[in-house]
Amino acid sequence: MALIRSVFQDELDSVSQSLVDLTAMVSTSMLNATTAILTCDLKLAEEVIASDEKIDDFQHEVDSRIIDIIARQQPVASDLRALVTALRMGSDLERMGDLAHHVGKIARLRHPQSAVPPELTDVIKAMGSAAVRITDKTGVVISTRDTEMALQVEQDDDEMDDLHRKLIGVLIKPTWKHGIETAIDLTLLGRYYERYADHAVSISRRVYFLVTGKYSE
Amino acid sequence: MALIRSVFQDELDSVSQSLVDLTAMVSTSMLNATTAILTCDLKLAEEVIASDEKIDDFQHEVDSRIIDIIARQQPVASDLRALVTALRMGSDLERMGDLAHHVGKIARLRHPQSAVPPELTDVIKAMGSAAVRITDKTGVVISTRDTEMALQVEQDDDEMDDLHRKLIGVLIKPTWKHGIETAIDLTLLGRYYERYADHAVSISRRVYFLVTGKYSE
Repeated sequence: MALIRSVFQDELDSVSQSLVDLTAMVSTSMLNATTAILTCDLKLAEEVIASDEKIDDFQHEVDSRIIDIIARQQPVASDLRALVTALRMGSDLERMGDLAHHVGKIARLRHPQSAVPPELTDVIKAMGSAAVRITDKTGVVISTRDTEMALQVEQDDDEMDDLHRKLIGVLIKPTWKHGIETAIDLTLLGRYYERYADHAVSISRRVYFLVTGKYSE
Repeated sequence: MALIRSVFQDELDSVSQSLVDLTAMVSTSMLNATTAILTCDLKLAEEVIASDEKIDDFQHEVDSRIIDIIARQQPVASDLRALVTALRMGSDLERMGDLAHHVGKIARLRHPQSAVPPELTDVIKAMGSAAVRITDKTGVVISTRDTEMALQVEQDDDEMDDLHRKLIGVLIKPTWKHGIETAIDLTLLGRYYERYADHAVSISRRVYFLVTGKYSE
């Protein structure tokens, strides 16, 4: 009997795989949003904006599937906790998609100008890379439940926070010459990347807690 | 038999009441955060910051209670949906508490200076009032499932968006004389109030959907 995988286990695995797929979609979205804002690529910005609906639809579909599993299978407490956690991870990923969408919208709003002045190109590039790295690791964490990797996501988030501080540091320098409107854009951009990474951390913490029963903080 | 209320129904009502209580806590927190930032009241800012932990703890307790009800009662699909919705409303309220906390932190950071220059006092005051009004109505929506009131929350949110645009409009005026750092604070403050109201709208929409089976948009 133990060799026969249950339908329920297959359903859990399928939910997990869908969350990994969602992670990949969100990662691509943030990668493209960052490229769009750094290269003033309107077409790519439009693509990111359009892809948000696909991410939302996919997340709603996963959500419905999870609730349906709970209703039909009436899982024991530990499985129920895993399924509720999956619902929450879906919400985090959907929100990460929104934040990539917000970055895309700033790129579109300022086109054909660039929202990012030359002295901040490197910082935004680094924030974009950190975001993609964090999301990709988060996908591995969901898929493998690797708690070491979950802790790495926290470290990557510290790096994102450093970049965010660096960004604000440049904005408030007396030598800043790009005016208030650009500073507002950059303040919001910084916030979007930071929140994006926070949601990835939140997902990794949820997995860490599911596996170990302890909080990773 | 129909006159005897089930234990399950009592448990659902108790969850609903806890969410209403959480709404009141969050509303008070945003009210105090707004007063703290407008009057440079450090003590009140510290109070708001400290109260966030209470809000988080209370939400976690409600969360555990909901999961426990699902595990024990194995509810039918419609009740399960109501309980999952309650979990999500709890997350929204917890996040609203975080955003009030962020406002409190800006008040503390800038003390004894004010983060809000005189020409923006009225706008921030109005955003604070709108936030409290929206939260209080959201509490009534949770408690009574009044769909008319749920639609009112959407209208109040439009008002919040107008105030947000007004705020940004003042920041980008050529006559702005308070520098970049203050503009950054105000950009973030505007974002916090706007996101706060978005979460209230999200709660009202969830209730609207539960009651009518339709989306309110």
